[in-house]
Amino acid sequence: MKNDTIVALATAPGSGAIAVIRVSGPEAISLTEPVFEAKNKQSLNLQASHSLQLGYIKDDYRIIDECLVSVFKGTRSYTGENTVEISCHGSPYIQQEIINLLLKQGCRTANPGEFTLRAFLNGKMALSQAEAVADLIASDNAAAHQLAMQQMRGGFASEIQQLREELLNFASLIELELDFSEEDVEFANREQFQELVFRIQKVLSRLIDSFAVGNVLKNGIPVAIVGEPNVGKSTLLNALLNEDRAIVSDIAGTTRDTIEDEISINGIGFRFIDTAGIRETSDTIEGLGIKKTFQKMEQAQVVIYLFDAYNILHKNNRGIVGVLTEIEKIKNKFPAKPLVIIANKTDKLNPVEVQQLTEQIPSLLTLSAHKKQGLEALEKKLLSFVDTGVLRNQDAVVTNARHYDALLKAQAEINRVQEGLNMGLTGDLLAIDIRQALYYFGEITGEITTDDLLGNIFANFCIGK
Amino acid sequence: MKNDTIVALATAPGSGAIAVIRVSGPEAISLTEPVFEAKNKQSLNLQASHSLQLGYIKDDYRIIDECLVSVFKGTRSYTGENTVEISCHGSPYIQQEIINLLLKQGCRTANPGEFTLRAFLNGKMALSQAEAVADLIASDNAAAHQLAMQQMRGGFASEIQQLREELLNFASLIELELDFSEEDVEFANREQFQELVFRIQKVLSRLIDSFAVGNVLKNGIPVAIVGEPNVGKSTLLNALLNEDRAIVSDIAGTTRDTIEDEISINGIGFRFIDTAGIRETSDTIEGLGIKKTFQKMEQAQVVIYLFDAYNILHKNNRGIVGVLTEIEKIKNKFPAKPLVIIANKTDKLNPVEVQQLTEQIPSLLTLSAHKKQGLEALEKKLLSFVDTGVLRNQDAVVTNARHYDALLKAQAEINRVQEGLNMGLTGDLLAIDIRQALYYFGEITGEITTDDLLGNIFANFCIGK
Repeated sequence: MKNDTIVALATAPGSGAIAVIRVSGPEAISLTEPVFEAKNKQSLNLQASHSLQLGYIKDDYRIIDECLVSVFKGTRSYTGENTVEISCHGSPYIQQEIINLLLKQGCRTANPGEFTLRAFLNGKMALSQAEAVADLIASDNAAAHQLAMQQMRGGFASEIQQLREELLNFASLIELELDFSEEDVEFANREQFQELVFRIQKVLSRLIDSFAVGNVLKNGIPVAIVGEPNVGKSTLLNALLNEDRAIVSDIAGTTRDTIEDEISINGIGFRFIDTAGIRETSDTIEGLGIKKTFQKMEQAQVVIYLFDAYNILHKNNRGIVGVLTEIEKIKNKFPAKPLVIIANKTDKLNPVEVQQLTEQIPSLLTLSAHKKQGLEALEKKLLSFVDTGVLRNQDAVVTNARHYDALLKAQAEINRVQEGLNMGLTGDLLAIDIRQALYYFGEITGEITTDDLLGNIFANFCIGK
Repeated sequence: MKNDTIVALATAPGSGAIAVIRVSGPEAISLTEPVFEAKNKQSLNLQASHSLQLGYIKDDYRIIDECLVSVFKGTRSYTGENTVEISCHGSPYIQQEIINLLLKQGCRTANPGEFTLRAFLNGKMALSQAEAVADLIASDNAAAHQLAMQQMRGGFASEIQQLREELLNFASLIELELDFSEEDVEFANREQFQELVFRIQKVLSRLIDSFAVGNVLKNGIPVAIVGEPNVGKSTLLNALLNEDRAIVSDIAGTTRDTIEDEISINGIGFRFIDTAGIRETSDTIEGLGIKKTFQKMEQAQVVIYLFDAYNILHKNNRGIVGVLTEIEKIKNKFPAKPLVIIANKTDKLNPVEVQQLTEQIPSLLTLSAHKKQGLEALEKKLLSFVDTGVLRNQDAVVTNARHYDALLKAQAEINRVQEGLNMGLTGDLLAIDIRQALYYFGEITGEITTDDLLGNIFANFCIGK
């Protein structure tokens, strides 16, 4: 698998000014050489690594395109093997013709993520760093981007790596004792080992705890907006969206298919659950929508309860008491879930009425989604639910469910080692639990992999990476 | 306009493994320098042209991405001015952050086609070559691609250029005569001039004639399929499409939004007019659809008349005579238009019935769209309507309506010069027509441009090219 040469389109599919086709493998340069005619007539093989040549990609005498070809040699490339990048005109037809030509030359179409897989297999990065590459490409807000970048640059992998080596050292010493079991020697200093186990436990707890925030920062914080029909749920969402849209739309060509669902406030993503539903159906706590509404709140990390301030005071027979009753219901059902209570359309009220509302409903936010008044207070409130300290402190944060899972398992094993130490367990029994913890550490950094594991990880990559 | 530094995403918008951001202008390197930290700590300014550096794009201390940055210096770049290409991870968020950063540095967002416009203004290519770049990116079949490539490599521009210089030479000589008009000298040899005018007329006719084929090869040959409902129009189209789709679909990520409308047979594009209509509405010559059907045939270069062979023989009371009547109507209305008559569903007939049809309906093609039988004959027939000789002979072909227009105007002026020569017109009158012809030649190659003209041409480019 590692010894053939792969090719794929590396840039986004479709039409652009230019496109880049990536070739990697032992034969990357020698398979490109026959179809490339440099303007300076020099052989591609003779070019220095990290250099660019202008010339023609030709199928026999037919010129397919004028291209810039860059050469990266051996270990200095992204994949750690010979790599050629062909920068061609960005027509899908030309992309396809060049790839077909390279396939004819003997290249193979790359699998999703295969370039990065090779980088991992060739020791250019740890497995967790390779995984961060996919996260980086998928990142669509500042927080997710920063976490992926942190992980790609090493993140907690080096810390885990370091602890793993220390643990491995003790494991070897303890196993050595077994060979001398009749002489009752202790090569592994139990006090030092106890100290290491403490340190490992501390690091694991910290990393495991970081997943709660890491996961939401990576995927966006799920928010449910609930309330009766026509209280302005979709207007509120649009008001929040529009501000964001204004920032991104001056970059032509930036596609934001998912803007309907996710907004970014100060670089933190907030995902509005089932926004299609918000625009169409009733979300009232009372009545038919109740089951669906509770489901939505269950999925959410933050709940926004929205009501029409004017209606409540002037038209709705339920009045403020009705609102308080609904809030009570939500709090009873989800006592631990952050709840934001918003009176919308307060531009239609006089100051006395607004005061009446804020006095009777605790921690109420008043705003007018339509007039875009009071949105800053809501944004500040939403941000207050997120511990963004980790972003400022550059602490290592776990964002990957696979890593979280492995850390939990490693923690369980280390706790058993701890228990064993307390109970004065013999070395041979201790060693089994230590080996198991080492196994889970290795799964994170990639010292321990199976084809299945690698297959799962890289299947989620895009082709060309 | 030429003295600032521009930036744009050069690869297709959206998510890919990598994206390329292009910066061009006198300050391209010095504006990128402060936000790029090379891994080898070397200054971007000191790098050789056509070299690649790995490093980080940073906004102050915040790392935006690990990037490969290539440097092209001065006249050796595509635009003919300093150029930097930043190859970053292909997330829209990262693309946007890097572009924003460069805008903050003092770059300006590039207009559509502005990189190529600069290449033209800096004398890196003739105007017709610059126009071919947009055609090349838009090309989606082998013929359109080859014509664009030919034009980009010079095409007929150098021929026009050469003739223009010769003509300019004579114009100068004739104008010189005017200064000595009282002495009755002839600096410009009238016989040689006559010979040049003949040569120009010949070249112009050839180029003007080539537009008919060049235009259809570039844009695809428009084909109308007509016939009664349920004769298998959409099945036939799908059968033709599927064969093509099979060829292209093994390249993952190739988007073919327009596949519904255009197919490529041996590299020649065929555009099926109003295929949405084919799938839904009646296209019968008789009855309500008649006006729409005639409109469609009028737009088409080739008309396919399709009928259900089984129905005609077994169910339809009109029978073969009815078919012949409809064919007659089409031929009367469009006597010069190539017409392909197809009996579909012939798999349901016995050999005697097939023979009966082919004997009574001249030049009939029999096929089964459903069973994909007989498609090769249809494809061969469609190709026979296209003069693909120009592609094999590498003759210069005009594909651009603007060039065609200028050539027609130049031809009219040259014909007036010819008439003037025949009539023994004086030099001062001849000179006026010659200057006018020179003007139109110059419009093609770009010696004569106006801001309006350039604006029109480059507005059709994509951003980043």
